[in-house]
Amino acid sequence: MLASVSEPMFLAASLGDPAGVGPELLCEAWVRRRAELLAPFFVVGSVAVLAGAAAARGLTVPLLAIDSPDQAAQCFADVLPVLDIGEIEYVPGQPSDAGAELAFQSLEVATGIVRGGGAAALVTGPVAKSQLAKVGFTQPGQTEYLAQRCGVSARNAVMMLAGPSLRVVPVTVHAALAEVPGMLAIELIRDRATIAAAALVRDFGIANPRLAVAGLNPHAGENGRFGTEELTIIGPAIAELRAAGLDVAGPLPADGMFHPDARARYDLAICMYHDQALIPLKTLDFDQGVNVTLGLPIVRTSPDHGTAFDIPGTGQARAGATIAALRMAEECAARRLAGV
Amino acid sequence: MLASVSEPMFLAASLGDPAGVGPELLCEAWVRRRAELLAPFFVVGSVAVLAGAAAARGLTVPLLAIDSPDQAAQCFADVLPVLDIGEIEYVPGQPSDAGAELAFQSLEVATGIVRGGGAAALVTGPVAKSQLAKVGFTQPGQTEYLAQRCGVSARNAVMMLAGPSLRVVPVTVHAALAEVPGMLAIELIRDRATIAAAALVRDFGIANPRLAVAGLNPHAGENGRFGTEELTIIGPAIAELRAAGLDVAGPLPADGMFHPDARARYDLAICMYHDQALIPLKTLDFDQGVNVTLGLPIVRTSPDHGTAFDIPGTGQARAGATIAALRMAEECAARRLAGV
Repeated sequence: MLASVSEPMFLAASLGDPAGVGPELLCEAWVRRRAELLAPFFVVGSVAVLAGAAAARGLTVPLLAIDSPDQAAQCFADVLPVLDIGEIEYVPGQPSDAGAELAFQSLEVATGIVRGGGAAALVTGPVAKSQLAKVGFTQPGQTEYLAQRCGVSARNAVMMLAGPSLRVVPVTVHAALAEVPGMLAIELIRDRATIAAAALVRDFGIANPRLAVAGLNPHAGENGRFGTEELTIIGPAIAELRAAGLDVAGPLPADGMFHPDARARYDLAICMYHDQALIPLKTLDFDQGVNVTLGLPIVRTSPDHGTAFDIPGTGQARAGATIAALRMAEECAARRLAGV
Repeated sequence: MLASVSEPMFLAASLGDPAGVGPELLCEAWVRRRAELLAPFFVVGSVAVLAGAAAARGLTVPLLAIDSPDQAAQCFADVLPVLDIGEIEYVPGQPSDAGAELAFQSLEVATGIVRGGGAAALVTGPVAKSQLAKVGFTQPGQTEYLAQRCGVSARNAVMMLAGPSLRVVPVTVHAALAEVPGMLAIELIRDRATIAAAALVRDFGIANPRLAVAGLNPHAGENGRFGTEELTIIGPAIAELRAAGLDVAGPLPADGMFHPDARARYDLAICMYHDQALIPLKTLDFDQGVNVTLGLPIVRTSPDHGTAFDIPGTGQARAGATIAALRMAEECAARRLAGV
């Protein structure tokens, strides 16, 4: 149950790379705003790009350039409000430096607005890290960038992926598999799980979150037979979490954690590496996964997919994850407001 | 389409550990033989154990001790035929050395019968490797044991897991995750994929099998950004497979390989490590996974679960995987007979 909130609830959306699928998916979400019961949002970006993206997708989307975020709530029923920060031609599938600069600026401005209380939550569009790196973006990803912009250590900003069937937190993310065992540490697992559990209470309304922690090795190592990380790192981390009063199961064999009966027993799976978390999430909830950054002073979500430079403008990109990201951002923001 | 075969088609089933769920699941499969359209099978094991397991599960299963396998086909409609090789009390959930010896003997005798042409295929019951090791079983698992007993190099016996939604071959299996990168090699991947593709043609009736090969690293390494195994090992292995005329996609990001649209594009996923293969299989097809050994002169399947020593005799164990293993064994054996 969400508490009813009297103050207007609207969201800031960054455009993502203008040559990717981000712009058209925001247009599609706006078209489906009533059927999907979406809270008002505005896009920090470019009227020209959004107009081009809507036209390429065959959507009728009246766009209104707004001067300040608080105009968004009032006009959203009739138009898609845009804080227009850059004119650029819509060229789907052809990333450019100008496009990357617009994507970076959109992220900067949208983050600043939400950080300053000018919108209830931030929904970021898909960017290409290799493109952003060309125009001065120095962080490994948007999660680390947002942590820095919010004055939070990157270590304390936790990426969670959530779909209708499953929530997962990968303890390590974009690292070669060979480096993963060396990156695991008791403190790392403990801190990620602690931050995630607190966010499940505050942002997701789960009073006593149940965590399931995966082992690293097949069969969770079979008591040291296939690797010892369960005994030396993961098990001790779980012991510390339990000592702190958290409801934690594990280390569990990862292959047995994601069938329906197993998923019914926990609220969040803590995974040791990228694919251990993302394989089950995308197997179950492809096209509907939301990337949520936990541990920030702001609410931030994002569709869990990339720019898909091969399909913008073709109508093939699916808006499910964008819509889910908008909805989750609203729900988390409402819970924070209700909890204040 | 299976060719019709005139000669009798019956299967040999090993008992598995008598203290595990194997015996009761064979009884359950027999009870459901008509509804599930199962080919006749006989159990190499113990009348006393099967009687106890049936009683504990509340099943009425008339058992008949047979003297030779060829009696099985005739009586199977009315009784469960048993080649009785050892009297032992049924004590569910309490593994013993005597039980492990019976499990080992059952495997030995059943394998010998099928190897000698006395039954069309072998379906093995779940064993506990730690128990078997106590009574002289020196192989890492049943797959390696069967390779040896069939005169095939363990390297050329390939484990495939198959469910209604997915088939997977893990290139490495029971190894610590930290050891996996060092175990990968062009030849290993090429040989496993080649053997698997040939088996899909011969045993599964897929004329031109489509293989999808997973990367090792997140995003399949993003062209060397997160690990280089895709460039130095997996990619070259795929090139060799293609040069040999096989239809092979990859290296693919593993997290994008297992949603419905992706699975529609291949017949078999070649995975680099245990959990990369088993997470999606068990997420999608828990309780229905079959372990098939490819590359042997005999057909061998097994339910893809363990002895589950915590639940025998309670009625909780599900027979879906045992029934699927029996059915798959029959289908593969029928295709081999038709292909001779």
